[in-house]
Amino acid sequence: MIPAGTGCPRPLTGGAEVDATHDPKLTSFVASANGHPDFPIQNLPLGIFSTASGKPHGGVAIGDMILDVPAIATLLPAEARAAAEAMGAESLNAVFALGPAPRRALRAGLSALLTAASAKAEQLRPHLHAASACTLHLPARIGDYTDFYAGIHHATNAGTLFRPDNPLLPNYKYVPVGYHGRASSVRVSGSEVRRPKGQRKLPEETAPTFGPCRNLDYEMELGIWIGSGNALGEPVPIAAAGEAIAGYGLLNDWSARDIQGWEAQPLGPFLAKNFHTSISPWVITPEALAPFRIAQPPRPEGDPRPLDYLWDEADQARGALDLAVEVLLETPKGGPFRLSLSNTSFLYWTPAQMVAHHTVGGCNLAPGDLLGSGTISSPTEDGYGALLEITRAGRKPVTLPNGEERRFLEDGDTVIFRARAARDGAVPIGFGECRGRIRPAT
Amino acid sequence: MIPAGTGCPRPLTGGAEVDATHDPKLTSFVASANGHPDFPIQNLPLGIFSTASGKPHGGVAIGDMILDVPAIATLLPAEARAAAEAMGAESLNAVFALGPAPRRALRAGLSALLTAASAKAEQLRPHLHAASACTLHLPARIGDYTDFYAGIHHATNAGTLFRPDNPLLPNYKYVPVGYHGRASSVRVSGSEVRRPKGQRKLPEETAPTFGPCRNLDYEMELGIWIGSGNALGEPVPIAAAGEAIAGYGLLNDWSARDIQGWEAQPLGPFLAKNFHTSISPWVITPEALAPFRIAQPPRPEGDPRPLDYLWDEADQARGALDLAVEVLLETPKGGPFRLSLSNTSFLYWTPAQMVAHHTVGGCNLAPGDLLGSGTISSPTEDGYGALLEITRAGRKPVTLPNGEERRFLEDGDTVIFRARAARDGAVPIGFGECRGRIRPAT
Repeated sequence: MIPAGTGCPRPLTGGAEVDATHDPKLTSFVASANGHPDFPIQNLPLGIFSTASGKPHGGVAIGDMILDVPAIATLLPAEARAAAEAMGAESLNAVFALGPAPRRALRAGLSALLTAASAKAEQLRPHLHAASACTLHLPARIGDYTDFYAGIHHATNAGTLFRPDNPLLPNYKYVPVGYHGRASSVRVSGSEVRRPKGQRKLPEETAPTFGPCRNLDYEMELGIWIGSGNALGEPVPIAAAGEAIAGYGLLNDWSARDIQGWEAQPLGPFLAKNFHTSISPWVITPEALAPFRIAQPPRPEGDPRPLDYLWDEADQARGALDLAVEVLLETPKGGPFRLSLSNTSFLYWTPAQMVAHHTVGGCNLAPGDLLGSGTISSPTEDGYGALLEITRAGRKPVTLPNGEERRFLEDGDTVIFRARAARDGAVPIGFGECRGRIRPAT
Repeated sequence: MIPAGTGCPRPLTGGAEVDATHDPKLTSFVASANGHPDFPIQNLPLGIFSTASGKPHGGVAIGDMILDVPAIATLLPAEARAAAEAMGAESLNAVFALGPAPRRALRAGLSALLTAASAKAEQLRPHLHAASACTLHLPARIGDYTDFYAGIHHATNAGTLFRPDNPLLPNYKYVPVGYHGRASSVRVSGSEVRRPKGQRKLPEETAPTFGPCRNLDYEMELGIWIGSGNALGEPVPIAAAGEAIAGYGLLNDWSARDIQGWEAQPLGPFLAKNFHTSISPWVITPEALAPFRIAQPPRPEGDPRPLDYLWDEADQARGALDLAVEVLLETPKGGPFRLSLSNTSFLYWTPAQMVAHHTVGGCNLAPGDLLGSGTISSPTEDGYGALLEITRAGRKPVTLPNGEERRFLEDGDTVIFRARAARDGAVPIGFGECRGRIRPAT
């Protein structure tokens, strides 16, 4: 279990959008939800699931169970039915496209139906499935996937390895740096990850060779799902950018460091990243996270103020997230062992700033598009979000509690991400897991 | 009109896949096709069109007309019907997904129906629409868009501006360098292009400012449409990579140079490119281009041999394309004026090498995915594929025939790309146009 707010040095601020669905006294007639580390009734994340007999469609996680949402749509109040019916599709794109109001109505309706005091418990029971007997799928058809670089400690650590005297480039504190990733190879948590082959050249080698990646790594990121989107040529203003987000997940930006080091100049990473990206199956809504919004920390003395299109008082006041994020490694010989514990509050830019920046030149985002935050490292070694940083690019192996060493990932290793939000007066919620196991190259 | 084979210093080789559909004596009962610079009966490109009354679906260009393909499916031989029926959809993804054999059968069937000797001319006439009265649409739903950098003269020219002593980075001659682009903002030729706003910083400025792009540019590229695709983790071998391509178009990788110069380190271009990409509406099939395949030129003395996964004798023998590519500029005061004339044979990597490289680490391509070749510049100034190169990043303005000067694109300018394939013994074919007009920033 991740301790509450670990690694976050910042004050909590009031959550204006906290409502009856967050009431800490609320419990569910689904017994496993009460005290559940991830999915108490205060969370209600959305996902796409299938049972052994049915085809994939939308559900909500409640404790160890999944409620079939479209199956109980008629039990919901009228204002929640559009979203419940949209969840009958094989992806959440349609419910994302509806925007915040129908999603909030769905949350309120589901919360009322699932409480311990629910008058409809018996009608719901046939539509509650044991999560362990279900398959979870990619939550949305991802039109485009963009990866940001907002983890300033990661950017500094990675930069130091290549430019010891000048780790952060001059644009870093002005531009929410990002690049386009590959949408087709994003897979849901649990899908195995094939070690890629490619051109690798170490600095001491004179020419590249072809073969399996020797420096395979993970990157711990926050995934950000786009909701209603925008038309080409119509930027999303920063004040509206938070409302454009449909939810959050945990994203593993698997990285082939030796391929990356050789290929990535001058146009950025390509094959080093596009062989696989993992995303957790449950979409944690902005509503569920309302109690865990915090102020974006004041920038260190001397850092520039963001340009106006990135500046919004309300976003500064509560646009950051207080989520403890944890990386664990399970090897064929033991574990899982914790590799790091960090916090999303270390990101230099808020999710709303990423959306505003992405669209400011006119680029159109669509429902189901996915953003990665960039690797979330803390300022201290126990919170580094990639092996590149932990092992100094492999030069300083990490010793696991069972005595094994790792410079980078080995075949058979499983990387597990978890996230947890907690604060005084709120019931803690979690994200579930994002996990992937490394298969050998073919 | 573009002269045949302009700028191509390389010998033509035999085209093994030349068949009766390429017969230079073949003419069509559609009179405008005979001698048409782009769409004689030897071309038969695929596209998505709509008439004033109908919804978008597939057609083939023949002279100044468009044949409604699904409407005449029953007139085709049985082996061509699957492709003709797939063209009833609003995009070509389904016909792309069928792969080469159904596409070839469709070509053969359409060629026979459209000849001057056709017994079915009267049955076809009601399904021939004047292209001037139709709307052309994006040919496919683009899942992912990737931009390569295979124009070695462009890479050298661009590199020289930033690194005069070291223009080509060490990986260039080993790696078909590419990066992921934005699929959502690809638009069909003719869509107006809004000048983007963004962060711009010139080298002599101390901090960035926000405003409209001041150095707006085009990049002339070959577009490559993916056909049947591959599964995640299953690379397309180089010998099969040519067959994975469904067709070609002309692509304008609009570029905001001042935004690019500031944002693009260390992860590559982002907002500088994602505001708009233009693609020509007609998909020129590999079959239509069979007579214009040429040998990839021998690499200059001292260049490394490509690694094995990029090396295929047949691809080397006829995997390159001999297409003259032309850029024209029309200003509010005059033109169109030719800015450059180059040839696709100057690309350092073949389209098959791009596909093999893209998938070698396991990345999955899907039907309708789009690749850009990179900017196609010739070794000489009259064939530079971007204003960046022609004007030395704006330092040396180009004077147009009417006396106007341009450093970069101005509002109201229209950029037009054309391409033409010609060789002795073959009827020349063209690509039609890729055009876009610049609208002022909002």
